[in-house]
Amino acid sequence: MAELFGGVEGGGTHSKVVLVDGDGKILAEAEGPCTNHWLIGSELCLQRIERMVSEAKSKAGADPQVPLRSLGLSLSGAGGAALAQELLRRFPGLSRSCSVSSDALGAMATASDHGGIVLISGTGSNCKLINPDGSESGCGGWGHMMGDEGSAFWISHRAVKVVFDSLDNLQPAPHDVGFVQQAMLDYFQISDRAGLLTHLYRTFDKAKFAGFCRTLAQGAQLGDPLCCHIFSEAGELLARHVVAVLPKIHQSLFLGELGLPILCVGSVWNSWEHLQPGFVRALARARAGAPCAFSRFSLLRLRRSSALGGARLGARSVGAALPLDPHRNVELFYTHEF
Amino acid sequence: MAELFGGVEGGGTHSKVVLVDGDGKILAEAEGPCTNHWLIGSELCLQRIERMVSEAKSKAGADPQVPLRSLGLSLSGAGGAALAQELLRRFPGLSRSCSVSSDALGAMATASDHGGIVLISGTGSNCKLINPDGSESGCGGWGHMMGDEGSAFWISHRAVKVVFDSLDNLQPAPHDVGFVQQAMLDYFQISDRAGLLTHLYRTFDKAKFAGFCRTLAQGAQLGDPLCCHIFSEAGELLARHVVAVLPKIHQSLFLGELGLPILCVGSVWNSWEHLQPGFVRALARARAGAPCAFSRFSLLRLRRSSALGGARLGARSVGAALPLDPHRNVELFYTHEF
Repeated sequence: MAELFGGVEGGGTHSKVVLVDGDGKILAEAEGPCTNHWLIGSELCLQRIERMVSEAKSKAGADPQVPLRSLGLSLSGAGGAALAQELLRRFPGLSRSCSVSSDALGAMATASDHGGIVLISGTGSNCKLINPDGSESGCGGWGHMMGDEGSAFWISHRAVKVVFDSLDNLQPAPHDVGFVQQAMLDYFQISDRAGLLTHLYRTFDKAKFAGFCRTLAQGAQLGDPLCCHIFSEAGELLARHVVAVLPKIHQSLFLGELGLPILCVGSVWNSWEHLQPGFVRALARARAGAPCAFSRFSLLRLRRSSALGGARLGARSVGAALPLDPHRNVELFYTHEF
Repeated sequence: MAELFGGVEGGGTHSKVVLVDGDGKILAEAEGPCTNHWLIGSELCLQRIERMVSEAKSKAGADPQVPLRSLGLSLSGAGGAALAQELLRRFPGLSRSCSVSSDALGAMATASDHGGIVLISGTGSNCKLINPDGSESGCGGWGHMMGDEGSAFWISHRAVKVVFDSLDNLQPAPHDVGFVQQAMLDYFQISDRAGLLTHLYRTFDKAKFAGFCRTLAQGAQLGDPLCCHIFSEAGELLARHVVAVLPKIHQSLFLGELGLPILCVGSVWNSWEHLQPGFVRALARARAGAPCAFSRFSLLRLRRSSALGGARLGARSVGAALPLDPHRNVELFYTHEF
């Protein structure tokens, strides 16, 4: 069998593995739960990656004892460099080499070799600018205790906080809290808000808490004003991450046919229509002080897992270049001209 | 030996026990670390309470096998009713009866039998109105994941967040971040902000994180504009807890010599002069829509541990009335007439 290159997309709720051949053709895929080492610890993270890669090898009909040529981990949660070494040490049959990049870099490597902005809003959030010369700049990505603005966790937390502050008379809610309050009791299976304390502290599970966002997205879809309001706030905060890196953007990124390309990653983008009002407003406002070349932006989404980009980066780290098929991997879903 | 009544003040960072006789005279005291069951779990909480009470018994020269007449737990962290039963079951020689109240009620029982507002800002924050007829109303007290506005944790978190957002260019800081940034690196013994992630997630310790507030209080004392700004914001948020319960306040609480009495509990109040601008501003603003009887407020602080109030409440639950010496237990530190 020809040499195999592996890639991992490690999210805060779900993870994916792909195995590709030297032509970049996907031979097998596998899925698993969260592999963010900040959320589950390094040990569980290693075990889950090994399990997914082994499963994918088996699906590809590959000998489980023959190591991959390379494995590229594209992980949410900053600073997992030590994981790669530990993975090779613990599972020597897994891969001949292993490298780690951020989830943002893996996503970009799935979409393009020319750079752009990666704006992640999944369980958590993050923004990374990758200039055409490879230089990087970022905003956010510090997790739920220090950021995650505009993410599923943030949206869930904000919705619950609006209910609490309204009941406490601490801060009036911008809209009636009825739908969100009942949805909160149903989702967490509690009879009053005091029941939420267990979910916030004793049995805290970020993915579970962030999962409430799906219910709120349905609420926005049904037209609940508070849900719509919170998604628009999230859109504004996500756009402000882009605004934060504007001064660092290489001029050439503004000049393509699509204007500034923003690669949107994570399931919160499924609610784009509800993020849109705040998102567009914040970028339009910021444009006043921005370079005049910033006259248009486009939002793109991946049609394939960023595990594929992880595989490309892993291959690159051992001197192999896997080809890219941007038309197959990425699609435009919104464009805006100021 | 005469019958002994015990009281516990259970904080998020420190705890205290007092033993008093039937005249309310303090016979012994003991101290310990955090006994907030949400932060450390019920098991450790029980062990720490038992250890402190036993130490106090020994200091009082009491027979450790003879149970107290009653033990009143005044605990931070909502909903510890089950702890009392478990404590009696596990340590039958400790006390003949055990009851639990919130930290706010314990504080009020240390200061007065006529009610008022208890406004806690220690590791966490909370506000409780106790009307003269015993009816209660509250705002906050949901812990660091859902509130704690104006607390030491909140002040520490806010300071760190201002630094992160400023470095990310996400939100300009209201003042130069130099002092706070260096203080953060020193306090957490890290070389850059990425080093903080471990303290926020892997080894998170609320009391340790909140302890950074002490450094920020020193910064305010030295005149650092950002520290002063954040303390004033905290003051404003604490006052907004009082504003939240204003509509529920029994008119008679406004009419005493001191105006509305606010019992301030927790070490953040040691920085009152820096909380003051925001605190007074928020109350003055709210007064416009408040009952006209609200023409004055006074801030009081305890001179004795609210473990004493815990002992009084514990005694009351078994039909014993321990006397109160308000002049010894409480002092005025600020009064404001609109």
